[in-house]
Amino acid sequence: MSDEFIKQEMNVTGEGFLPGLAIDTVIFGFHDTHLKVLLLTYKNTGLFALPGGFIHQDEDVNEAARRVLFSRTGLTNIFLEQFYVFGDKSRHDTAPLKTIMTARGFIPGNDHWLLKRFVSIGYYALVDFTKAIPTPDSISDSCDWFSLDSLPTLMQDHRQIVDKALQTLQASLDQKLIGFNLLPENFTMGDLQCLYETILNKKLIRTAFQRKMLSMGILERVAKKWTGGAHKAPYLYRFIAER
Amino acid sequence: MSDEFIKQEMNVTGEGFLPGLAIDTVIFGFHDTHLKVLLLTYKNTGLFALPGGFIHQDEDVNEAARRVLFSRTGLTNIFLEQFYVFGDKSRHDTAPLKTIMTARGFIPGNDHWLLKRFVSIGYYALVDFTKAIPTPDSISDSCDWFSLDSLPTLMQDHRQIVDKALQTLQASLDQKLIGFNLLPENFTMGDLQCLYETILNKKLIRTAFQRKMLSMGILERVAKKWTGGAHKAPYLYRFIAER
Repeated sequence: MSDEFIKQEMNVTGEGFLPGLAIDTVIFGFHDTHLKVLLLTYKNTGLFALPGGFIHQDEDVNEAARRVLFSRTGLTNIFLEQFYVFGDKSRHDTAPLKTIMTARGFIPGNDHWLLKRFVSIGYYALVDFTKAIPTPDSISDSCDWFSLDSLPTLMQDHRQIVDKALQTLQASLDQKLIGFNLLPENFTMGDLQCLYETILNKKLIRTAFQRKMLSMGILERVAKKWTGGAHKAPYLYRFIAER
Repeated sequence: MSDEFIKQEMNVTGEGFLPGLAIDTVIFGFHDTHLKVLLLTYKNTGLFALPGGFIHQDEDVNEAARRVLFSRTGLTNIFLEQFYVFGDKSRHDTAPLKTIMTARGFIPGNDHWLLKRFVSIGYYALVDFTKAIPTPDSISDSCDWFSLDSLPTLMQDHRQIVDKALQTLQASLDQKLIGFNLLPENFTMGDLQCLYETILNKKLIRTAFQRKMLSMGILERVAKKWTGGAHKAPYLYRFIAER
């Protein structure tokens, strides 16, 4: 779904767009030990969905994903990555799209391009949710953060898409250095551990975590400024710039 | 490309297939310290390409990928995984497809579906290349293994697809336990190190490699049978079954 939807609704053959191909983005918001997901609600339907969109004929697929992310959050230069293609034939389900269009007073013909089988490319992003400005698209009522542990029922296979995105995020936490986008320039080992614990949804042992992080060669310790209680303040770290 | 190609060549609108969507598979062959890639050559064109295909309307995308792998190698139950969607508009290049069709005596109209922009879903597989039976499709001359370090020039962006697959393979070596498919049931630490060194294309330090592998909790030592020279024979390991 996207701001382009109205144009596409009238454009029954889908001219100007790649046929049968969509993007769904799982936008994880992190702040202060909480992990949330951005969802849209469609007008007069009660349907919840991931932000998504279609790809213009003259647009790269990754570019379309960045456009969707920007449209829904106002953010650019964000970690945004493909993680899986959802291409099972069983995901073809015209009911929710008919509901959305009908609720808007538009009765689509059965050969409307939006009712054909779509393959969706899943992307995930991780943003500081205090910095995002959630913005509904033209056919949705609202665009809001929902806690990962209390998501409403999502349309089509969107719940499966969220779960797969979370698994990918958890599995690639070290490799992707996702914290780079999410932590302030200088942070304590405790801040970093808190980020990991929130994403992995489990407690980590402080000493083992610290040892692992330091052994990865990605952190440098920031020289401590002398203050009265300096010996009590924790060390500050930052990511080594080249990474 | 696939055995379906001839049918598709005549089927100018691409009926029965998902439009604009293709699969390309990077099939890595491993045996005896060598890593190779399976390539097709198209008749009378000198063009080299990855095995690939299209997706039937009534077929899951992953199922189509398994069909392509089976058609080109005769193998099933192989590690085969999506790794990236190649969706830049710049990859739209009709010249090679026109060359392939023209070399077969078929002159496609400009609105032929195969000349439209395609997004390709990249898959990679790792097989024991002594077990695969490379099989050309109906429009290719040959289907053969090529050494990774001396690949011919590949059509379109297929070289980029190979490189990205190799990076993914290298980065996910531990997680994916790829060796599970490639090593005999019982193997020595040396066999495992050789597999890693071949894929990573670098020498590893024996002691550090052994320590890392044992710390991962994925291997169990097979009880040594007593033989005359037993104290000289290396320990045998196997992957712990639950993994």
